[in-house]
Amino acid sequence: MQSAGKSERELIRRIGVALVGAADNPALVPFGDDMAALSDATPGLLWTVDMLMDGVDFDSRRHAWRDIGRKALAVNFSDCAAMAARPVAALCAVALESRLSMDDALGLFAGMQEMAARFGCKIAGGDTNSWDRPTVVSLTVAGRTPDGVRPILRSGARPGDAIYLTGPVGGSILGRHLTFEPRVDLAIEVARLLAPTAMIDISDGLSLDLWRICEASGVGAVIDDDHLAAAIHADARRLADQDGRPADEHALCDGEDFELIVVLPPGDESSGRATGGSNDRRSVAESLGLLALGEIVAESGLWRQARGGPRRPIEPRGWEHFRDAAR
Amino acid sequence: MQSAGKSERELIRRIGVALVGAADNPALVPFGDDMAALSDATPGLLWTVDMLMDGVDFDSRRHAWRDIGRKALAVNFSDCAAMAARPVAALCAVALESRLSMDDALGLFAGMQEMAARFGCKIAGGDTNSWDRPTVVSLTVAGRTPDGVRPILRSGARPGDAIYLTGPVGGSILGRHLTFEPRVDLAIEVARLLAPTAMIDISDGLSLDLWRICEASGVGAVIDDDHLAAAIHADARRLADQDGRPADEHALCDGEDFELIVVLPPGDESSGRATGGSNDRRSVAESLGLLALGEIVAESGLWRQARGGPRRPIEPRGWEHFRDAAR
Repeated sequence: MQSAGKSERELIRRIGVALVGAADNPALVPFGDDMAALSDATPGLLWTVDMLMDGVDFDSRRHAWRDIGRKALAVNFSDCAAMAARPVAALCAVALESRLSMDDALGLFAGMQEMAARFGCKIAGGDTNSWDRPTVVSLTVAGRTPDGVRPILRSGARPGDAIYLTGPVGGSILGRHLTFEPRVDLAIEVARLLAPTAMIDISDGLSLDLWRICEASGVGAVIDDDHLAAAIHADARRLADQDGRPADEHALCDGEDFELIVVLPPGDESSGRATGGSNDRRSVAESLGLLALGEIVAESGLWRQARGGPRRPIEPRGWEHFRDAAR
Repeated sequence: MQSAGKSERELIRRIGVALVGAADNPALVPFGDDMAALSDATPGLLWTVDMLMDGVDFDSRRHAWRDIGRKALAVNFSDCAAMAARPVAALCAVALESRLSMDDALGLFAGMQEMAARFGCKIAGGDTNSWDRPTVVSLTVAGRTPDGVRPILRSGARPGDAIYLTGPVGGSILGRHLTFEPRVDLAIEVARLLAPTAMIDISDGLSLDLWRICEASGVGAVIDDDHLAAAIHADARRLADQDGRPADEHALCDGEDFELIVVLPPGDESSGRATGGSNDRRSVAESLGLLALGEIVAESGLWRQARGGPRRPIEPRGWEHFRDAAR
C-alpha cells in the first residue's frame, strides 16, 4: 500500500502521447481505458492485456498455481466487465520460472482453462518460455459488447451523475484477490438497463480508480461517508483488526477488489430507457445489488462528506506499480 | 545453443490438449501455429503474442532500449508474415525493471512505435508495471490476411513439395536478431503468386522450425547440401571463424533469423494460379528472391543429402526455452 505517486501516471501519459498522439487518432476508445478498440473495421471488438508477476501480483510460495492461472484470466475478464463486454478469446504468454515442475505449469493452465470455460471464452494460443527468474504471466483477452450496447468508457462521467459500486470493497488481500468473480453479466445488465456514463473496475484501489474516472472525464467526485461505511467489506474490517488501520481506509485504498465503479446519469436524462427518473434509476440499481457511493461534481478533486457536513479533500491512493513493486 | 529437448514441445503439446481439446475444437488455425484465429465471427483476423525477457531474448546491458522495443514488435510482425497476414494493431504489456529511467522506458516504446508506424500498425494500449527483476516485454499483435488470401498454416506440407527460404540464415546473434526486417510484404506476395502449402518463421532455428512444419503436416524433409551451402549467411561464416563450429551448423541451428521457411506445391498442382508448372514456380520463386533448400518427403524425419549421396538423418536443433533459459 502506498500513496499514488505521479510516476506511473506520468509514464503512462507520456507513453500514450508517444504511441498514439493526441489529436490525430480519435480512436473509439481512448488510450489507457480498461480495453482498447481492436480496429476501426471491427466495431464492438475490444481487447486488453494484463501482466502478472510472481512476488508482485501473486505469491507462488503461498498460492496454488491453479488459483494463479484463474486470477491471471479473471483480471482481464474484469476489464471486459468494465467496458460491458463479454470475453471471446484469449492468448497466454508466460515466462515460467525454470524450477517449476510440469505439474505446476499444467496447474497454471488448468486454472486459466476453468475460468475461460465458465465464461465461454476460448484460449486460442500463446507463447511459452522459461527463465531462472520469477514467473510472469501475460494474458490478452478479446471481448465484444453485445448487440445494442456500446463500450462504456471512463470518460463519460458528468456533474450530477451518481456513483455506485457493484459490491463491498477492501481487504481483498485476505483471499478475494484470487477468488473474485469478474462482474461480466452484471455489467452487461447495468449497461442495458441503466445507460452508465462511465465504468471502471477496481484493480488498484477505490479512490485511485475513481480518480481515474474523474481525470478521464474532467470532473470530481464526492464520496458519502454513510454510503462508504455501508460498502466496507467484512474482509476490510478483519484486516483493520489485524493491522490497526481504519477499515474505511482499506475500503478506499486496497487494490484488487475487482468490483466495478458504475457512474449513472440523473434519471431525468435517461429518457427512452427503462428508467424514467432518478427514483426509478435508484430502484433499478438497487434491484441489481448496486451500492450507492456518492456523486460526480464539476470541480476537479476527490472528497469525502458526512451528511450535512463540509467536504474533506482526500488523496487518490492505491496500488501503484511504477513507484514501488514490492508489496 | 542446445539440442532440442522434448520438454518444451511436450509442455506445449500438453497445454494445447488441456486448453483446446483435440477433436471438439476444429479451429480455423490449430493451437500452436504462428498466429491464432481470433474468433469464428472474424475470418481472416489473427493474433499472436510474444514475450521477451531481458537476459534471454535481449540484453539491456548491451542493447539500446530503442532496439529492444523495435525487436519486441518485429518478432510479432514476423509471425504475421508466417501466416501471410498484415499487422493491424498491437497491445503492449511490460514489467519494467525498477532501476530503469524514464528515458529508458520511453526509448523502449519509441522503438516499438517506429516499427509499428513503418508497417501501418496501431499500438492500441497496454499494461505498464515495474518490479525489481529483469524487464519483460510482451507484445500482442492482431493481423489480417488480405482479401483473397487465406492464412498459411504449418500443417499443409505434402510429399513432393519444395522447401524455400526467404533469405540466408545463421549467425543472427552478431546483430541481425535486433535489426531484421519482418518479411510481411514478401510473404503476402508469395501467398498470392505461389499458393504455399505451409510457412513458418525461423525464430528458434532452421532445423527446429522446419521440423515443426514436418510434425504439424505429418511429413519429413530432406535438405539439399548444395542448397544449404548457398543459404548460409555471411554472419554464420563469421561466427564459425570465431567459435570454430561449422558454418552450416550455425545455419541449421541458430535462432532468431526471422526468415520464412516457405513450402511450395509441385507446379502441376497449382493449376488456376499464376504458376503453370514446376519450372514456372521455380522461376517465380527465384524472381522473388527465394532460396531453394530441399524437399518434403512422406517419411517422418529430417535429413541432409549431398547430390547423388544417401540421406543422413539430422536432429532438429535450436533455441528451446523450457529446457534452459540461459544462452
